[in-house]
Amino acid sequence: MLERDFLGFINDRKLFKPTDCVLLAVSGGIDSIVMAELFHRLGQLFAIAHVNFGLRGPESETDALFVKNKAEAYGVPFHLTQFDTTEFAAERGISIQMAARDLRYAWFAQLVAEHHYVGVATAHHQNDVLETILFNLTRGTGLAGLHGIAASQNGIIRPLLFATRASIATYADERKLAYREDSSNANDKYARNRLRHHVVPVLVDLNPGLWQTLPRTVERLRAADVLVRLELDRSWQEIAEPIGGETFLPIEKLVALPELPFRLGEWLKPFGFTSDQAVQLVASLTQEIGQRFESPTHRIIHERLSSGATGLLLEELSAAPDYEIKLTDWPKVPLDVTGQFTVTMDRFHKPENFRPDTNPKVACLDADRLVFPLTIRPWRQGDRFRPLGLNGHKLVSDLLNDLKLSRSEREQTCVLLSGEQIAWVISRRIDHRFRVTNETKSVVTLSVIVKS
Amino acid sequence: MLERDFLGFINDRKLFKPTDCVLLAVSGGIDSIVMAELFHRLGQLFAIAHVNFGLRGPESETDALFVKNKAEAYGVPFHLTQFDTTEFAAERGISIQMAARDLRYAWFAQLVAEHHYVGVATAHHQNDVLETILFNLTRGTGLAGLHGIAASQNGIIRPLLFATRASIATYADERKLAYREDSSNANDKYARNRLRHHVVPVLVDLNPGLWQTLPRTVERLRAADVLVRLELDRSWQEIAEPIGGETFLPIEKLVALPELPFRLGEWLKPFGFTSDQAVQLVASLTQEIGQRFESPTHRIIHERLSSGATGLLLEELSAAPDYEIKLTDWPKVPLDVTGQFTVTMDRFHKPENFRPDTNPKVACLDADRLVFPLTIRPWRQGDRFRPLGLNGHKLVSDLLNDLKLSRSEREQTCVLLSGEQIAWVISRRIDHRFRVTNETKSVVTLSVIVKS
Repeated sequence: MLERDFLGFINDRKLFKPTDCVLLAVSGGIDSIVMAELFHRLGQLFAIAHVNFGLRGPESETDALFVKNKAEAYGVPFHLTQFDTTEFAAERGISIQMAARDLRYAWFAQLVAEHHYVGVATAHHQNDVLETILFNLTRGTGLAGLHGIAASQNGIIRPLLFATRASIATYADERKLAYREDSSNANDKYARNRLRHHVVPVLVDLNPGLWQTLPRTVERLRAADVLVRLELDRSWQEIAEPIGGETFLPIEKLVALPELPFRLGEWLKPFGFTSDQAVQLVASLTQEIGQRFESPTHRIIHERLSSGATGLLLEELSAAPDYEIKLTDWPKVPLDVTGQFTVTMDRFHKPENFRPDTNPKVACLDADRLVFPLTIRPWRQGDRFRPLGLNGHKLVSDLLNDLKLSRSEREQTCVLLSGEQIAWVISRRIDHRFRVTNETKSVVTLSVIVKS
Repeated sequence: MLERDFLGFINDRKLFKPTDCVLLAVSGGIDSIVMAELFHRLGQLFAIAHVNFGLRGPESETDALFVKNKAEAYGVPFHLTQFDTTEFAAERGISIQMAARDLRYAWFAQLVAEHHYVGVATAHHQNDVLETILFNLTRGTGLAGLHGIAASQNGIIRPLLFATRASIATYADERKLAYREDSSNANDKYARNRLRHHVVPVLVDLNPGLWQTLPRTVERLRAADVLVRLELDRSWQEIAEPIGGETFLPIEKLVALPELPFRLGEWLKPFGFTSDQAVQLVASLTQEIGQRFESPTHRIIHERLSSGATGLLLEELSAAPDYEIKLTDWPKVPLDVTGQFTVTMDRFHKPENFRPDTNPKVACLDADRLVFPLTIRPWRQGDRFRPLGLNGHKLVSDLLNDLKLSRSEREQTCVLLSGEQIAWVISRRIDHRFRVTNETKSVVTLSVIVKS
């Protein structure tokens, strides 16, 4: 019965071919021992991998020996490794459970690549699926947390996913299989055990057909999740405008979308934003522009572009350190600003018929209009100035977009501030208010030398 | 605390305005009694409705009296009704629980309309949400079954949906409110009680923050469901072609869609098809054309149109009865076929220079080619014939489409069969094989008189 369903499931889901060699992750517990027996009885090529996490002292050693003997009895290759899970977890600042999982799957992937296995098979079954769903539902989840475990994904195969724990136990009993108490998911065990022993039996009692309906429920939710992703991708493609290295989401298109907080939450999750931030972002759309939200890697600003369009501007946080160099007087020597370029300043009385240098690398400014302290710093989102010749303000980001600069050129652009006002977007454009006019008495020339 | 959250929830969800009068469904149980007290303390206008289902004998009477006294104490209108739920359920062939629900909400809707209440409020709370989710998960469900209960939908308001059962019990205790054991959902009680007493406490113990995370989970799933519906509607609009009164889904567009079984299941649910049928339909797409699937109201055929396009044709099952009139000899008198039209037949030797009548209501056929029994019946999906002058076969449905007939004209069209072959699509087109030729010796003229 279990053997027939096992073969049916493998064929139905095209998990592997009769000629493939599958690496089985065998802890020595009932589930993985039954899985190995099923592979053996099927005549499928397989190998066995066992991880000793060293978390239970001598018991762990006995488990490893037990699985080794099993592999020898089957006459299949046996791979064994040992991890110091506690140390790895401490190093990475993650839980023991996460550490064990990461180490385990990394090692399996390595074995699969080295020995040309078709993938690694784990012994997850229907009860694991239900327990995972209940566990996620309890902790709070999205749709993805409710369709549980895939039968085949990222090189991990779960050929027992069709089976219930009870059917596996019956099979172990019938074939008189010896096994060890399962040592996997040790840290997860308390929650799992409570769900297993106290919750699942009640649910099965309420619907004895639960194990028949569950795969359909899971399949429906998985398919629904795919459709959600399609709709999210489609609407993102429709409204997201790439601007330089940034992405602009126009407000009038955003607010026309049903379920905007959910969409923003899902769209921005890969950029490190939380769903709470997404809700705040939606609220910010009806408020004044200028609000900023940051994730560990990205920033979103409710912004107005020079085109007049308002919306959300998403940008990667610059890896370049933010700094400010304050000048309280004219520097006597060239100023090595970032180690990458040097600014020199030359101040003089305006000669007759003076004509400013037209090279953008050189700024000619009215020295008397500059107010100390002067500041040199990288430009920031939201910086505005009045470009030479323009009767109005412009975002520095828009200027850089107009100039079609590369991402790194944009990131390395600095500004010179007179008090709070931008006097020069360095090497790009001076500010109209600081230009040399007929009334100018004293000129300062600033030039930039990029170090090669 | 509960009062403040109650007001916050009402305002946040815009459930009703301070000037609205709300009809409260009050069973007399703790939840609805607390709801009434909260409305009273808020100073909101309200009325009370109580249903006596007569399912618990004298206890039901005491409940009704208790609620009536409560309404008098608050000085608000009181509505009482009594249903014979058992009889109604038996009549309709539904469960007592369904019957009670249907009767209850129909009466509430009537009261709301008559007395201009803003809607009816029920005392559902967070525990009901979680229990409903668990109950649906246990029985098998789609996404809709996992986002539980709406705060406001179809005129039903649930202003306690933010609260937990525990917070309601605390409030009842603090305000020393008397209440009756809740008599609603009597038939649902066993399952509910087991979830309430045995499952939910375990989940809350595993995540003490459950009542904070649950509303977010529910909201995410609700929003995801909206996006699934959008994607389903969008793709349906994109591929469904109306053909006459039917809908055609071209195979090449169908198979290009991700998650086709799920989509078909959801698309066809309103037409009465099951998700199992949807899975079979998808399988039929790779098999020979001609397979049919029926729901109580609709039919789907894997069909090839005259244009050569293959796909699924969805049509409403005709309300017109399907019948067959078999003729084993030429009728001596006009034949009253449906009570709506009469067919007369006239057989004679073909005269010299005979020219067939060109009126489509009259068929001139080669009498010797007709084979008894002749059959008159409504046309059916899949019927094919060889229209006069055409060197090949055509679906009757395509002919009717080409003629741009109305739905009722299409439905009323009948065919005359000679053995298994269609000789005449009555009043529309004769079959080429049965036409009068130079070799014809004996002609039969059939004509149709529609009764006015």
